[in-house]
Amino acid sequence: MGSDHDVSRRRFLSTAVTSTAASLLARPALSFAFGEPALGLGKAVSFETEVAAGSISPWQDQGVLNLANSPYAKLHTVPVRAVTIEEGFWSKRRKTNIESSIPSMRVELEDHGRMDNFRRLVGKSSAPQKGPYYSDSDIYKWTEAVGWALQSGDRPELRSVTDSMIREVVAIQEPNGYLNTYYQNDRVPLRMQPHEQEVGHEMYCLGHMLQGAIAYYRATGDPTLMNAGMKFLDNFVIPNYGPGANQKPIISGHPEIEMSLIELYRTTGKHQYVDLAGYILHGDERATLQPRAIVYMFCGIPFTTRTKLEGHAVRAMYACCGATDYYLETGDPAYWKTLNVLWEDLSKRQMYITGGVGARAQGEAFGEPYELPNAQAYGESCAAIGNMMWNWRMLAASGEARFTDVIERALYNGINSGMSLDGTTYCYRNPLAFDPAGYDQFRGPNIRNPWYDTTCCPPNLERTFGSLPGYFYSTSKDGMYVHLYDNSVLDWHLEDGTPLKIQQKTNYPWGGDVKLTLNPAQAKDFTFYVRIPGWSANARVAVNGRTVEGAQAGQYLPIQRHWKPGDVVTLSFPITTQLVAANPRVSEDTARVAVSRGPMIYCMEGLDQENGTALSDVLIRISAQEGKEFQNEYDAKLLEGVVVVHHNGAAHETSSADEGLYTPVSSTPQKSRPAKLTMIPYYAWANRQPTTMQVWSRYIRS
Amino acid sequence: MGSDHDVSRRRFLSTAVTSTAASLLARPALSFAFGEPALGLGKAVSFETEVAAGSISPWQDQGVLNLANSPYAKLHTVPVRAVTIEEGFWSKRRKTNIESSIPSMRVELEDHGRMDNFRRLVGKSSAPQKGPYYSDSDIYKWTEAVGWALQSGDRPELRSVTDSMIREVVAIQEPNGYLNTYYQNDRVPLRMQPHEQEVGHEMYCLGHMLQGAIAYYRATGDPTLMNAGMKFLDNFVIPNYGPGANQKPIISGHPEIEMSLIELYRTTGKHQYVDLAGYILHGDERATLQPRAIVYMFCGIPFTTRTKLEGHAVRAMYACCGATDYYLETGDPAYWKTLNVLWEDLSKRQMYITGGVGARAQGEAFGEPYELPNAQAYGESCAAIGNMMWNWRMLAASGEARFTDVIERALYNGINSGMSLDGTTYCYRNPLAFDPAGYDQFRGPNIRNPWYDTTCCPPNLERTFGSLPGYFYSTSKDGMYVHLYDNSVLDWHLEDGTPLKIQQKTNYPWGGDVKLTLNPAQAKDFTFYVRIPGWSANARVAVNGRTVEGAQAGQYLPIQRHWKPGDVVTLSFPITTQLVAANPRVSEDTARVAVSRGPMIYCMEGLDQENGTALSDVLIRISAQEGKEFQNEYDAKLLEGVVVVHHNGAAHETSSADEGLYTPVSSTPQKSRPAKLTMIPYYAWANRQPTTMQVWSRYIRS
Repeated sequence: MGSDHDVSRRRFLSTAVTSTAASLLARPALSFAFGEPALGLGKAVSFETEVAAGSISPWQDQGVLNLANSPYAKLHTVPVRAVTIEEGFWSKRRKTNIESSIPSMRVELEDHGRMDNFRRLVGKSSAPQKGPYYSDSDIYKWTEAVGWALQSGDRPELRSVTDSMIREVVAIQEPNGYLNTYYQNDRVPLRMQPHEQEVGHEMYCLGHMLQGAIAYYRATGDPTLMNAGMKFLDNFVIPNYGPGANQKPIISGHPEIEMSLIELYRTTGKHQYVDLAGYILHGDERATLQPRAIVYMFCGIPFTTRTKLEGHAVRAMYACCGATDYYLETGDPAYWKTLNVLWEDLSKRQMYITGGVGARAQGEAFGEPYELPNAQAYGESCAAIGNMMWNWRMLAASGEARFTDVIERALYNGINSGMSLDGTTYCYRNPLAFDPAGYDQFRGPNIRNPWYDTTCCPPNLERTFGSLPGYFYSTSKDGMYVHLYDNSVLDWHLEDGTPLKIQQKTNYPWGGDVKLTLNPAQAKDFTFYVRIPGWSANARVAVNGRTVEGAQAGQYLPIQRHWKPGDVVTLSFPITTQLVAANPRVSEDTARVAVSRGPMIYCMEGLDQENGTALSDVLIRISAQEGKEFQNEYDAKLLEGVVVVHHNGAAHETSSADEGLYTPVSSTPQKSRPAKLTMIPYYAWANRQPTTMQVWSRYIRS
Repeated sequence: MGSDHDVSRRRFLSTAVTSTAASLLARPALSFAFGEPALGLGKAVSFETEVAAGSISPWQDQGVLNLANSPYAKLHTVPVRAVTIEEGFWSKRRKTNIESSIPSMRVELEDHGRMDNFRRLVGKSSAPQKGPYYSDSDIYKWTEAVGWALQSGDRPELRSVTDSMIREVVAIQEPNGYLNTYYQNDRVPLRMQPHEQEVGHEMYCLGHMLQGAIAYYRATGDPTLMNAGMKFLDNFVIPNYGPGANQKPIISGHPEIEMSLIELYRTTGKHQYVDLAGYILHGDERATLQPRAIVYMFCGIPFTTRTKLEGHAVRAMYACCGATDYYLETGDPAYWKTLNVLWEDLSKRQMYITGGVGARAQGEAFGEPYELPNAQAYGESCAAIGNMMWNWRMLAASGEARFTDVIERALYNGINSGMSLDGTTYCYRNPLAFDPAGYDQFRGPNIRNPWYDTTCCPPNLERTFGSLPGYFYSTSKDGMYVHLYDNSVLDWHLEDGTPLKIQQKTNYPWGGDVKLTLNPAQAKDFTFYVRIPGWSANARVAVNGRTVEGAQAGQYLPIQRHWKPGDVVTLSFPITTQLVAANPRVSEDTARVAVSRGPMIYCMEGLDQENGTALSDVLIRISAQEGKEFQNEYDAKLLEGVVVVHHNGAAHETSSADEGLYTPVSSTPQKSRPAKLTMIPYYAWANRQPTTMQVWSRYIRS
């Protein structure tokens, strides 16, 4: 393949340049994946012919999204395999993910009958149907996690077991294309009935099937599962459901299908999938839904009429992902306008400081504006992931760093908190305050569990950490963007085909110095866009030791020059302990502060405080010499290595435990005593014995 | 009847003395009710013979509860009819209740098919079954409201229509005693099945039937509905359900039956109803419930093993009512211990400053300890009423004013807020902060509505205001207790039979001076217990102008003397504007204060604040001269007459509307400007156009 293909009328010709086969083969971990699909189960479909003809990007060049041919994408992804994360902050998490989380989740899925649900239908299991109606999606999301993870290095055993699982999944596909283990036997007549479309998740399961299939295809070139998904769509869904007079309406009871359809288009070039996604995002006037359903499901009315985030948070985030994907392909300005209105709502009124979203347990939903309770926060792991996924798409559409700030906030905090350090237990909820004594029977005794009967979050976390390298860089017509910082190597190329390696050396996020060594194959004019995090007020940027002016927090700093091999960009983001206040309208955070350090939000756990001081009694001391009141210390032995923050704070002399519920206000403030306070990064909470936790603490000025 | 009957082995002989027929007949409003039952539908039952024989109290002497023969009641009720509330604070509400609320609710009940549900079963209506499975209880609670209301004066039309409704209710009773409009036709096989007992409210409906029947009987002497309830119990329930080997278990899916059974015992003398209540309160080991159900339904395990309030708030409050009733009859110390543990939990960790309970919308439930959000408060009107009902029973058992403080707190605030000033719309939720702009579609656009498909709260409010006179006084062996203050006349007697009238003259709760003129029929030694409210730190009490020492806030002051006709007790509770703080563990109230004035909790409504200052920006000014910062003014034209509180407060110079969601903390406090703030009593909120509201405001010290 050469460079600079013309855009065809199908708007699907590649504008990106693929790596050479040689450079791929030089990566031993992926050598298995190049060439023939490994399983050989899938028959050749037309898009493979097109791949061979060079008219669409080969699978191994496709990133987390394949934006190579998306006309309204300003940024384009690089494949997961193009970035190798080296020893540093994320390497531990990623090692745990592939060595502990993904394998242990497979055992859980088997133990809870999720695969037997498939086997039973072909006579290979006599176990009863297990799990809720959306249980097939657990398998698909796990498959997606495997797909991304394999792109960072082959795991033959894992690959083999996943191949077998895919074989067992596709074995149940019916001749008409239908594939879902729940709607069987007595439930066959219920398939795609209007009520079932609202509650039954058939399209949701198909969406995750497609996403799992695509990730696995991008890892292995094996289209088996993707072919099954296309057959479901082409033979069953599209002939019978859609806007036509002879079709029945589609109701997206849990948005997810939208973004997967568009990614399928990006993978296959079949534009009918974009059209179908657009139809679903618009809603079908023939399917009249209750107002509550329209709110809760975030579907059923034209997406472009939405003015605020509401209803089920994961549904809303996934709908926004699908709508942004639709914009990236169509450029429909009504979508872009709505997406920006919703993003303003997110970032000004609806997002936790951890990047979590969805305040309410009831309906797993967004609350009223500024309704962001702490102990009662829902903050479902899946919703924070949905937030990151959405902002990744907004970033691609705009190239604006405000979206990357949200990605970083969610990733380091409200997502990272979702998985225990050992990778075997998961938070479904991610509250910002916690008291194990008060945690009630409605919610089970533990905040982290190895399994949930609705086990959406665990494989969602696994697919996120598996795909993480794909979020570090993007290309643009004029150069390269760096979004995230960690020790890593990029081995990719500019959009004109010039090979480019970038080495990152950093202690980020514990420290704020990053050294980026650029090695283009030959000296080249292009722009290197370095992200200045929104929290970094005094960033300094230099190239080969010479300062580059213009670094602004929350912006990409474009460095346009004639880059030569070995050029070094040094970034310095002074990482200090920062105190953050919430908008006064966030009533639970009134007169409280949170502690942050770089991208990390900190919290206090009760067991770390001296003399057993209750967290409800502690006071952060705000003084003119703020910095001196905090001492930072990297403790390699604590929580797999964290920077601990110590603070010369205070505590109320009278413990709140001894006070009545309502008492007359005294004309003099309550007395306090000095107290040493200890804080850890929020993501690491609840990894020791049960104890209290809080992110937002009261303060005194002194 | 004479005085001092011996207690029989049935523990049911009266220790109270009834009024003379003459004094009853002197009350024209009740003349209709004396003598024969008005309807004549009910056949004589044994207890009526006992009434005639003088062995149990006649119906017209029975109060809100009939504690005349309850061995563990320290205080005994006086009948509703014995107290006439004269023009003052409560007269408006009570007039609205009888003239507007009760009649308009009857129309609503008819319009929503609640009576047609009965008529259909006897071929008098072809309308389909309407409303949820507990809809019969709507009728019964409304009947109860009528029953109490009629005791303050006959309303022949209302009585006539209620008689007809009762006739239509009992017409559907089956020969086996069963009476419920929901479990008919296809649902007959579901009757009292274990799952239905958990969710179907059959016993709940029977409980409300009994309570409605008893209130109506106490008004009119007509036992028709009560006989039907007894027939349901005696013919259907007791032979088939209960602890016996030949009986099936009873699961109290929504506690209510317990207290009604005991009140039925108190009305009829049939002790089997106490036994049945005790069995239900204990739970049946044969019926194993899920832990979540045990929490949510507040039943299924021995009541005496409970250690905290949890689950559905109304269920928990009603269960506590039943358990206290059970204690009042049996004296079981395990019950008293548990009730006190639960009351500590209520008053220290679970009650809003308004007396509302039940923090969470999800499950209409208690939250974790100190989980008392404001805008998200559920505070169901029914739960606040349940709180008042429970504390009324605890007061009877103990004579302790801490329970009366809760009654007063709930009554003036969290209950009184439930009904609009015009009496035609109702709050189901009673939040402590509100923004109509944020009020979401999940909950409907309005906070006050004329009808809810689950219309438990409206008739519950109506029965509460209808029975209010019965809460003003109690008798004890040694004298008389006064609990509540308003212009009123008590016309009752001491327990030794001495007639006693007490006239109250007061401006309470706007002012704190109360003049009580005692007119015993003859001079008599007894103790007059006057309640010093918990909020009244500097109460003064005098008899005929001479100070009585010992008044303590939150206590009854016993005044033992030789009382002569015309003796005057003057109470002075200096009512000032008080600022109240919440326990720091109530996270939403951190660094906030509430304003109270006597028993009234105040709130701010946005429309009252000058220059449109947002409530999220206002600041209460706490200064050494607190009193001078507040000006009180009675405004007869505002909200049907309220004392408005004006405050020379402040507001932030930068509106929170203009601030980001998370911002670095400044080393200097935010600047504020002076701002005139206006507050109204909480109960009167949401009676003008939609606007913001808050009870807890931020403050500055100056």
